This record gives sequence, structure tokens and C-alpha cells, in this order.
Amino acid sequence: MVRVGIVGASGYAGGEIIRYLLGHPEVKITYLASDTYSGRHIGSAFPNLIGRDLPVCASFGDTAADEADVFFLAQHHGWAMNVAPQLLDAGKKVIDMSADFRFRDAETYEQWYKTEHAAKDLTRRATYGLPELKREAVRSAALVANPGCYPTGALLALAPAVSKGLIDPASIIIDAKSGLSGAGRSKFELGYLFSEADESVKPYAVADHRHTPEIEQEISELCGRAVRVSFTPHLVPMVRGILTTAYASLVRDATTAEALDLYRQRYADSPFVVVLGEGEYPATKSVAGSNYCHIALKVDPRTGRLVAMSAIDNMGKGAAGQAVQDMNLMLGLPETAGIEHAGLYP
Amino acid sequence: MVRVGIVGASGYAGGEIIRYLLGHPEVKITYLASDTYSGRHIGSAFPNLIGRDLPVCASFGDTAADEADVFFLAQHHGWAMNVAPQLLDAGKKVIDMSADFRFRDAETYEQWYKTEHAAKDLTRRATYGLPELKREAVRSAALVANPGCYPTGALLALAPAVSKGLIDPASIIIDAKSGLSGAGRSKFELGYLFSEADESVKPYAVADHRHTPEIEQEISELCGRAVRVSFTPHLVPMVRGILTTAYASLVRDATTAEALDLYRQRYADSPFVVVLGEGEYPATKSVAGSNYCHIALKVDPRTGRLVAMSAIDNMGKGAAGQAVQDMNLMLGLPETAGIEHAGLYP
Amino acid sequence: MVRVGIVGASGYAGGEIIRYLLGHPEVKITYLASDTYSGRHIGSAFPNLIGRDLPVCASFGDTAADEADVFFLAQHHGWAMNVAPQLLDAGKKVIDMSADFRFRDAETYEQWYKTEHAAKDLTRRATYGLPELKREAVRSAALVANPGCYPTGALLALAPAVSKGLIDPASIIIDAKSGLSGAGRSKFELGYLFSEADESVKPYAVADHRHTPEIEQEISELCGRAVRVSFTPHLVPMVRGILTTAYASLVRDATTAEALDLYRQRYADSPFVVVLGEGEYPATKSVAGSNYCHIALKVDPRTGRLVAMSAIDNMGKGAAGQAVQDMNLMLGLPETAGIEHAGLYP
Amino acid sequence: MVRVGIVGASGYAGGEIIRYLLGHPEVKITYLASDTYSGRHIGSAFPNLIGRDLPVCASFGDTAADEADVFFLAQHHGWAMNVAPQLLDAGKKVIDMSADFRFRDAETYEQWYKTEHAAKDLTRRATYGLPELKREAVRSAALVANPGCYPTGALLALAPAVSKGLIDPASIIIDAKSGLSGAGRSKFELGYLFSEADESVKPYAVADHRHTPEIEQEISELCGRAVRVSFTPHLVPMVRGILTTAYASLVRDATTAEALDLYRQRYADSPFVVVLGEGEYPATKSVAGSNYCHIALKVDPRTGRLVAMSAIDNMGKGAAGQAVQDMNLMLGLPETAGIEHAGLYP
Repeated sequence: MVRVGIVGASGYAGGEIIRYLLGHPEVKITYLASDTYSGRHIGSAFPNLIGRDLPVCASFGDTAADEADVFFLAQHHGWAMNVAPQLLDAGKKVIDMSADFRFRDAETYEQWYKTEHAAKDLTRRATYGLPELKREAVRSAALVANPGCYPTGALLALAPAVSKGLIDPASIIIDAKSGLSGAGRSKFELGYLFSEADESVKPYAVADHRHTPEIEQEISELCGRAVRVSFTPHLVPMVRGILTTAYASLVRDATTAEALDLYRQRYADSPFVVVLGEGEYPATKSVAGSNYCHIALKVDPRTGRLVAMSAIDNMGKGAAGQAVQDMNLMLGLPETAGIEHAGLYP
Repeated sequence: MVRVGIVGASGYAGGEIIRYLLGHPEVKITYLASDTYSGRHIGSAFPNLIGRDLPVCASFGDTAADEADVFFLAQHHGWAMNVAPQLLDAGKKVIDMSADFRFRDAETYEQWYKTEHAAKDLTRRATYGLPELKREAVRSAALVANPGCYPTGALLALAPAVSKGLIDPASIIIDAKSGLSGAGRSKFELGYLFSEADESVKPYAVADHRHTPEIEQEISELCGRAVRVSFTPHLVPMVRGILTTAYASLVRDATTAEALDLYRQRYADSPFVVVLGEGEYPATKSVAGSNYCHIALKVDPRTGRLVAMSAIDNMGKGAAGQAVQDMNLMLGLPETAGIEHAGLYP
Repeated sequence: MVRVGIVGASGYAGGEIIRYLLGHPEVKITYLASDTYSGRHIGSAFPNLIGRDLPVCASFGDTAADEADVFFLAQHHGWAMNVAPQLLDAGKKVIDMSADFRFRDAETYEQWYKTEHAAKDLTRRATYGLPELKREAVRSAALVANPGCYPTGALLALAPAVSKGLIDPASIIIDAKSGLSGAGRSKFELGYLFSEADESVKPYAVADHRHTPEIEQEISELCGRAVRVSFTPHLVPMVRGILTTAYASLVRDATTAEALDLYRQRYADSPFVVVLGEGEYPATKSVAGSNYCHIALKVDPRTGRLVAMSAIDNMGKGAAGQAVQDMNLMLGLPETAGIEHAGLYP
Repeated sequence: MVRVGIVGASGYAGGEIIRYLLGHPEVKITYLASDTYSGRHIGSAFPNLIGRDLPVCASFGDTAADEADVFFLAQHHGWAMNVAPQLLDAGKKVIDMSADFRFRDAETYEQWYKTEHAAKDLTRRATYGLPELKREAVRSAALVANPGCYPTGALLALAPAVSKGLIDPASIIIDAKSGLSGAGRSKFELGYLFSEADESVKPYAVADHRHTPEIEQEISELCGRAVRVSFTPHLVPMVRGILTTAYASLVRDATTAEALDLYRQRYADSPFVVVLGEGEYPATKSVAGSNYCHIALKVDPRTGRLVAMSAIDNMGKGAAGQAVQDMNLMLGLPETAGIEHAGLYP
């Protein structure tokens, strides 16, 4: 059994990684770190984990590297860049959930995250862990930057159309709707209180969200030129899920059926992407609690645009599920090990 | 007191008109028609109306015209066009909540609603009842077509930018998020069950929704040329509210502050439109239960686009509130009579 | 116009009192106090109040008494007892939303609230402001203690049965289900985050909630002997509303119809209490945003028990609405002035 | 691999059994029956099951018995009693999700379900499938009646206190709060629409619910005399979960700690029951999507009552999860096989 450590175990991403790994046939959780719950069983943070056979939470420290072979770092940005180097030097595999290693260009990171990067050389050695785009690179990676939740939904919805030249990348507009768990467990702002968030939809960080450059980096790589996109995230009153609706101008005539066919080919080897039939549309409920992504397309001949839609669980394919998928690839395990179960419906 | 009749009293729009009018100082509800609840008090349909001094529900028939001076017709499309002519001939004022009289060109109606129009000449005499665009026309109208909920949110968000030539109308993309009450009370489809709709966001009628040509008609009138827009509605798990996020390319440089200023001027005489400050964004909760519309703008200099956002209560400004606002104007009453109360927060 | 001041204007109760009073025909808000929003318009706290003609928030201080004739004190317990004496000495009428003056016996307060009472003599002069039980006392009161939300729902459900000797008071069990807004706006505990509270029901403060002695005080007064009750509050994933289900053993045979008749007589002069018909049950949605209370009864001949149920809006009849109702009575105004509007449905 | 058939595959219970069994190591789904989806893949009913390796849905018919070794019958009451005899005669094991075989006394069934029983002799041979009460009987059963969701929550909360004589069974009052999925997928009544159910709590079937005699049957067996209980179900605005709050008079002094100890002993061998620590209370979210039951107790010395609380997922321990647990026991498999995964949190 491969030994796994999770740092930031009491955050939502950490808890969800634990949930997935408890059912994983090839790995064992040997280390959990959480400052808040240090010395306690993680069940005191997550009542769904009460009674599970898990190590008591530790405070992350110098000897952590001895405790596991693979580390999931589920902390806020700015943390992993100070820790990953040592873990890598010790021969560990590292999957970072934060933005620290998502940008090949550290300057972009510094500009959007207002944080000086402490491990700039590592950003070029890290692999952006979206297996549907970079499966082979992930297999051989020691350091994977787990993609942001919004970029995951947007890129899966757009990648085939961009790489096949179906749409004009400069015309891309991405409108995303997310459940509240994306805000994490430690944000005690007014807007995250139940009474404020329930029965309300609202945009935030309009044309200003930090996931924008991450989307742009990957779209630009796919089409071979620098591209800027419009991206607007919204909070909707649900716990899990991101529904992404992306718009772009077609550069050649195509029917919805042809576009769907192109996507099906592109994702034929991707077990977690489901391309829906013509006239079917994704719903976040369909993938809740799972690592799946549902994708739908509609060509609008009236306006000459493609509407590409995707649904993911922001905690699953948008975070913990994808991280385990990356781990499977990094360890040479079957890509679906431990994360193949169906979502909860209804 | 002006006598008011409401036909379709047991639907959500009908019930909400009743709720607003119960507090209206200048009118009295003298007639309620509902086939389902005929012979019963409307409190058996809407428990919030139990015990109110209201006429027992009737079945709509030939003598209805005697019962009131103003009629709200809150039925599905295809109904009002057969009834409005007689009411107008009898000198009544009519506010139709359906799509029957929203299109100046009956052919557009017939094409999108798959229904032959039975009163084509009336479509040209009807006034599209969005007071912020056509206040004077509404004042003198005998027949008002109450706008659709989505067009109300989209047009209020876009009209100033379109009419002032700030954006390219051909580039408009409208992404709308609606609560479930927009589906009405009689749609017993699987997707409207609580267990299916809760904790889920999903698009529907992508590039195909009947409110699209309604938006296009008014945008085209504002800019003086035929325009097509992309419009995608989504269902989000809440009862009331529509959050509209609209995107368009700027045709000239402008800052967010300048754009906001332009909007404030345009809506200076519109008591129900609130233009938020720079960096503030609308939430549907802020207007729930009210006739208000909150609007925000963001110029994105990186992409050269304007993001225009609005929040309304689909039952308020998107239906019943706006209908009462129209009635006030038609009767020469203060525009805000009976509908000035603040929304419910939280 | 009577001048009204609201202290604690940026809390949920404060905001709701403002909302009600904006439509009140006989009073004018002349003073708002909020430390957090001092110097700002209350619209920055409550977006539904943006643009309203209201005084800028002040910090409560010595000269407050000059600013209004009636004061609503909407602060946490332990605050009003230090302030009410001066306001009363200055001839003001005071309605306190906290628990400070709800107990005729200050020792009970001190025991349950772990706070020394600073104005013990006043507790006996204060009137418990549940108009359906003490309408005449409220009319002549200078200081009203607005009842807790749970006691309001429980007492309205039980009072007629207790006072008429239909049930054994010692057998009373009260199971209450509340929306999250009851927790107020400043409790930033984990359990009030949307992601934690949504899709979950949970009991709290079992057999230990501070509203227990308040219910007992009034039940005991109604039946003329000291009574203890079981009371369990639960949080349910909604913003507003309390559904109370109360159980008690019948001391004499009665049918549901007879019990309902007894309640209807008891509440014949209470405009805000609606006793539902046999077989009908209350729902919190039916009274959301209003000052109404819906009550239902069921006699269970199999077990010899009465099940008494009530639905209120915890922010309406459970707090702000009731406070305005009390104010109306204190000022000799019609009991329903400004608070007669119907709830929001759906 | 044991071959499993599920009849009523497109209902919520059916879909959830499929979800659990897809991850079960020892069985294979070889037969799915659904009249509505006959000839189609179950993914067209449940989007979380799109693409799964599952047999196409059939219409249940005479040859069904050939298709599997174990049958889950997930139909409405009145169906299984006509089908189970033949399946049993063919040597199959049967787990019925309906009420048809829950009552040892067919007359009770006939009285509460208003349906003549077609297989009265079988009711005495059937085993009530609550493993925590009847584990050994389930192991040797050919026909298991899967308990109702409410009885599961109530009995797990009360059984130890009843069987150990801690409480007076005649004093039991059960107040249950359920999510909407309990209503099933085919009830198209107004109250189950999102807009009607959201933001509302309401009781129903007060002192009249069909699960009442089921609870009474088992409580009576536990205490050795005929007992009647008060039971009130409520709908709360969430999809999954039942929170049960039960009240009863103590017949002897006990502390909360002692009562908890008694429960821990009673459930020591029950892997799916978690007895929480003193001062901790269950939340339905803690068990969502799982087969676990969380239990808490509070002795109220002021009133001499015990408050016993439990949380289950009505689709998990309240239906599908428990049915798989029963199957495991009937087949001699580990009790937790395929159902040990943690719930989804948050």
C-alpha cells in the first residue's frame, strides 16, 4: 500500500480527499496534518468521518516527510511553495491543491495573487494536473498543481473546440455558477452565512477572478497564441457543483451533432468525461459527490456561436477527485481507482 | 376606487398581483377568476391570503367585463388574444401577462410560439409595458403587454448601453439565472420537483428560449437595426429572482465609472431602478418580494467588454410588480403606488 | 407622526423593524443606531433598503433620547437593562427585543442567562408583549419586553388549551423547527455557514435552551401553577420561519373540531392569528414576511393527546412584526397599522 | 458473483440500490425492471448512472425469476405481495422495500393501508429487516421486509431505552423531520414542487401516518406489551435525511452518560450505528449518502424525560443502504460489504 499524507486535512478539500481515499484499494492514509485539529481525530472536524481508522491529526512539521510517500497539500496559496521543495528533495510525490504551481510563468502568479513566489524554478517543473489535457505529463510528474475548480469546468468545456480550431479563442466568454463549498470552510464572511447566501444568486470578482489567468494560460497553449477571456463567477445557493456556460464565435460552419462528435473523439480515452446527447444539458446534481464531468454543446446558427456547457462537482473533479486521479496516474495505478463511484442522485 | 379584475388568480403571477393590490391605496379587487378554484376563496389556493376580504373566485365568462374597470390577464399564451378584444371594446383597460401582445410583428409570435395569432391587428396597438423604456406610451395605453421576466432583466441591464452606442449590439450575450417560480404553478414536470431541482443548476432551452425574440425586438428598436442576441436561461435552486449577466464588446473606451454615470442619468426618473456603486454587485435576495431592479456594471479593459448585471424578482419587476406599475401609469396614479415597499431581506 | 428610533439597526431584527415601519402610516423613523454602520446609510448593511429616506446611522449615546418618542432596542441581552431606565425616565416608550425584561422574576433571568440583572425593579414593571395574551397590559405599558421567537410560536399554539383546562400542562412537549435567521447576523460560527447548514436538520440546546423558562413562565401563569415543559429547538435549512409542534395529554375527551372551536373563540379578537380548518396544517411559507400566525390542531384519540401546531415568521410575529404590533397598541393606533400585509408566497 | 435483480429501478429507492451495488465486491446487477424506462438504459432515468455497465431495463414479467438470485422489490405497497410468492417458490431471496410484509399481523396492514392482503401467510414468514434488532433472523431469512424510513430512525433511537426498561413506552412521542426524497419520484403533487416546498417546514399526516403501526409493532415486541405512540412527520426543505426527536418519561433515575453507555453497549456489534458523545447532537448532513445512523441522548432532569435523537439518510439506512445490509446478511457476506463508505460532507 502506498502511504499517503494530507496536509490541511480539516478543510473541505482535505476532508474530501480523505473520503475518496478511504475507499481506495491501493493506498493508505498514514498522515493527516491540521493545526486546528492537531491531536484529535478528524471526525471532530468532519462528522461523516467519525470512527474511521485514521491517524490522529498532527501539526505539519519537519518530520512530516517521513510519514508518507505521497503528499496532498491542501492549504491556501502561498504555503506549498515553501514546503514542496523539501518534500520533493526527499523523493516524495506532491499534489498541491493551491495555485502556487499552476502558472508556468511565476510573474503571472505574482501579479494576480499579490504574493512573491518563493520557488520560481519549481513552477516550470510542475505539471498542471488536468489529466484530460496532460495525461502523459502527469504520469511522470513528481509535482502536480491541481487545477482550480473553475478552470477545470471551463477547460473541459472548451478544450476540444479550441484545439480543433472550431471557435475563435479571442471571443470566449465564460459564465460560471458555483456552489458555496468553493469558498472553503474558514471564510467567515457575511456572504457565506446561510441566511445571506440562501435564495440568492450573485456575481463576484467580475472580470477580476484569479482563475482567469489560469484559464487563459491553458487556452493559449491549446491554440498556440496568447488569448484573453472574459470570466464571471457567480455564487448560487447550493453546496456543491459548478455549472459552466461558455460562449464563443464559430470560425467555420458546424452543426451541434458535428461538434458533439468532435468532443466525443477528443474525450474517448477520458473515463470521467461524459459528453451528453444533442438536446441534453448538464446539471450539477448529476455529478454531485463524484469525479465526473458532464458536457453538452449547442451550436446556435442564428448567432454563429457555440455554447459549451459543463457540470462538475467543485469538490470532486474540481478538487479532491481530480487530485486522486492525478495521484493514480503518478503512481501508475488505474486512472479510476477509488474514484469511479457514481454521484449521489437526487 | 378603481375596480380591478384578475383572471388566472390561482397562478403565481395572479396571486402576486393580489398580494400587491391588497396594499394599494387607489384600487379595489372586485373580480377574481380561476377555473380550478371557482366558487372558493383564493385562500384555498394561496395560504398567505386566507381570510382576506376578496371576492370568491369565478369562472371567467361573458359577463366578466361588468365586474371591473381594469383587467389583469394572467393566463398562458394563446388565451388573452381571444379575450382582450371584447374587454377593450367594452372600454376596459387590459394588462396581459402572457406573450400574446408582446410582439409588434405577429409573425415572430407565431414562429416562436407555434400558435396562430387570433388578434393580429391588436398586436400593433398594444404597448410593451416596460415603463423604463416606454413610460409615456404606457400612460396612454389601453392594452399593455407585460414583458417577460427574462427580457425585463436583460433590457434594464442593457438598454442604456445600447441606446447610447456604448456597445456593439451584435456582440450581446445574455446569461440568465432564474428561480423556480418562473416555471409557474401548474408545470408538474420531473425537473420542478424539489428533490430534482434542489442543489442543482442547469441550463435549458439553450439558444432556443421564447424570450429571445422579445429581447431582440426591443434591443433592435433601441439601436435602430435588426439584432440577434445569444440568450441562455438557467434554473438555480431558489424560488424567486433572476440574475442576468450580459456581455458585449465596447465600441469606444469607457471606464466603469463613466458607464455607471451614463446608466444613472438614463434611469434618473425611474424609481424602481437602483444603479449600484462601482465594485458592488447585485444579488437576487436584495430585491426579493419587491418591484426593484438592481444594476451593476464592470468594464473589463483586458478584453474590451462591458459586463452588465441586473437582479430582479421574477414575480415582482419580472411580472406582478411591473404589471401594477403599468396599471398605475395607465390610470394616472403615482407610478409607485402600492409597490414601493422594500424587499424581504434576508 | 410619532418619531421612532431603532437601536441595533443593522441586525436582522433591526432591519426588519425598519422594513415594516417604512410602510407604516403613523410613524416616522427619525433615529437609527448601529456601531458597525455608524455614519453610513443603512442601505450599506441591508441592500433592500438602499436609497430609502432614512437617517444616517449613529452610534448610540447620551443624546439619543432626544431623537425619538418610541425606541426599539434590538441588541443582545444584557444591553437594554442598562439603557431602558434613562429612556423611560425621559418619558419615552421602549420596546426591548432582548430577554432583559421578559422575566418577572429576575432570578430566573440571572440563572438562565448567566448575567446579573442591572435593573431588577424594572422587570416587574415591564409587560410581556404577546398581545394575544396581554393586549390590555400592552396598551398601557411604557416598557414592553418583546417575546422570544420560540415562546411566541409555542404560546400561541398552547395558550387556549392550557387556559381552558383541555390539557395537562405538566405533559407539554414542544418540538420547534427554526430557520437560520434566528441566529442573527453576527454569529460567525461554523454551523451557520451555508455549506454546513444547507441540506441538514439538527437539534441544539436540547432541554437547555434559554427560551424554556420564558415559555414556562407564561404557561404557569395561564394555568395558575408552576409548570415545567420539554422544549427542543432544531435548525432547518431555510431562512425564515418557526414551525412549532406541541404535544400534551388531554384531560378530558374532545374532538379536533371542538378543540378548534375553542381556539377560534379564544382568538376571535386577534387579527394576526389564523386557526386553520380540520385536516389543514400550517407551513412556515404561508406566513413568511408577515406578522401572521397559523395554528392547527389534531386530537389523537388513540393516544389521548392533543397535537397543537403553529407557524410564524421568526422575523415577523417572532420579532419585528410583533414589536410593531406592540408599538401600535402602546400608541393607541389600530393594532394592524403597517403590519397587515400578506406574506410572500411562494 | 451473486446475481441481483432490482424491480422498480427508476424510483429513488431503486436508483440508490443500483448506486450502492455498483461498488459492491460480491454481487453483480443482472436484471433491472422499470415499466417507464423499459428498453432503455437506466442512465436515462438517473443521469448519475449514464454510461454504467448495467442491463437495459425490462418490464417485469414471468421470466424475471431466471435473471437473478436475489431480488429487490422497490414498488409501491400492494405489488410485492402478488409477486414475492412465486420468487420464493423459485428459491430466490427477496427483499421488499414496500410495507407489504412489514406487519406480522396482516389485519394491521389492511386497516392502515386500506388494501386487502393477498399473501397473508407470508407475512408471518417474513423478517422485519432492521439488522440492529434482528440480525440473526435476517441471516436466515428468504423474505425480508425492509423497514420504513421513519421507523428505522425512530426504532434505532428508542430500542435500547425500551428494551432495558429505561423509559415508559406509553409515553413515547416521536417527532420526525424528513427531506423531500422520501415522497418518491412519481408524486406530482403541488406540495412537492420546489417553489412550494423550499423555505418551508410543515407537518403532515399528523397522528395518522402509516408508519405509526410499524413503529408500534416493534416497540411492543421490545417491551412485551401493546403500546401506542404519537408520531408526527414533517417535511423540511432538503433532499435527503430524517432527523428523529423522540421523547419519553424515564421510569428510573439516570444520567445522560449512563443512558449513552447503555446505548453503546447495545450497539457495540452494529457497525452502522454511531452513538455520539454527551453534548453532541446528530445532523442529517453527517450521514447523507451513507448507511450510517448517528444517535444522541439527553436526559432532562427538570422534566424527568429522555430525549433520544437519530439522524439517517432516508435513502441510505432508511431504504437502499439497509436493504443492501440485509442482503449481505442473507448471503452470509460481511455486513458492511459495499456500504461502508462515508457520507458526503458538506
